[in-house]
Amino acid sequence: MSEISILQDVHERNETLAQTLNQTLSKDTVFTVNVMGAPGIGKTSVIEGLIKRLNAPSAVIEGDIESDIDTKRLQQAGVTTYQINTGGACHLDVPLIADAINVVKPQPNSFLFIENIGNLVCPAEFMIGEHTKLLICAVTDGSDKPYKYPLAFEKAGIIVLNKCDLLPYVDFDEAFFMAGVRALNPSVKVVKVAAKTGAGLDEVAAWLTESMNALS
Amino acid sequence: MSEISILQDVHERNETLAQTLNQTLSKDTVFTVNVMGAPGIGKTSVIEGLIKRLNAPSAVIEGDIESDIDTKRLQQAGVTTYQINTGGACHLDVPLIADAINVVKPQPNSFLFIENIGNLVCPAEFMIGEHTKLLICAVTDGSDKPYKYPLAFEKAGIIVLNKCDLLPYVDFDEAFFMAGVRALNPSVKVVKVAAKTGAGLDEVAAWLTESMNALS
Repeated sequence: MSEISILQDVHERNETLAQTLNQTLSKDTVFTVNVMGAPGIGKTSVIEGLIKRLNAPSAVIEGDIESDIDTKRLQQAGVTTYQINTGGACHLDVPLIADAINVVKPQPNSFLFIENIGNLVCPAEFMIGEHTKLLICAVTDGSDKPYKYPLAFEKAGIIVLNKCDLLPYVDFDEAFFMAGVRALNPSVKVVKVAAKTGAGLDEVAAWLTESMNALS
Repeated sequence: MSEISILQDVHERNETLAQTLNQTLSKDTVFTVNVMGAPGIGKTSVIEGLIKRLNAPSAVIEGDIESDIDTKRLQQAGVTTYQINTGGACHLDVPLIADAINVVKPQPNSFLFIENIGNLVCPAEFMIGEHTKLLICAVTDGSDKPYKYPLAFEKAGIIVLNKCDLLPYVDFDEAFFMAGVRALNPSVKVVKVAAKTGAGLDEVAAWLTESMNALS
């Protein structure tokens, strides 16, 4: 039973630290978005597209097992980005984020995007100080995801349904997908997006701006 | 430090159990395939397509966080399938598989597919008695996956590059993908597949049959 009690301790300690970090970020109106989604779902593309559309400064903390491909890409686009490599760990946690924030030093009245590890399972379990979780799915990955990975959908503040430019070429049952989403999270906003073309990103950016204004 | 030593113990104990299970499966020539890949990558579709093409009986153990959508689908196609729901856990382990095998009772000279949890990170760390790991990627998910999730690529016995029917509509840099694969796993077989049309699956089935013959 020692393994279980240690796991509970890790979760509880993380929740407490997450609340404290969230209060600090709120005080400075740094609206913090925990971006979650499977590998290759388009997390970096969505973040990049949103930052272009937001009328406030933005910074990004990039979580990856290994590599700094996404960080280099964002830095080339002129975005302040800090890389975390977990070296195998499957999600980010508060101590990693707190260290990153000490380096990034987000400005007051800004957005902070935290791109979590590409994984629909583990990141959903750990708060990292965020004000909202932005969950990304894609029409290329089937319509059954809410049924198979319920926690991520239950905890999402907004859901981006990405790669909608490929809708004509795939079998995606939108009604089945939405029924699964609504059973877990009746009021969550769901936006159809194509990060490749930018379609739908204005609507997501407007929601984030509204949410940030509600904070201050 | 107690967390780290417990984690090491879990890994070591799992490795020992995996070797024992693998020996039992080898004795009966039950060629066991650990199917890994991100959520929505097409794991069930690939398994279903392969089983139709194999000239030996097959059974499937389905790992999911929640839901039995894939099990029902395979059972409707006449495939012997056993469902494991991990209730949150992000990978399968040997005790779960051993229990399932006691129920499934695979025939001698057969294939056993184990569909792991949709996750590119955690399943790569745990052996579950398999003879090979079949890793599935997709051209819709970008060409940088080997760089970002190296362990899964390093450990793969065969890599299926799925959703190739969508190649005309996406930006997939095959040379960059293959350079990443080869750096981690110089000799692994990589097969371009479209599970939707069945293209490429004959080649994967032939490789599995050859591998099973080498076992007996």
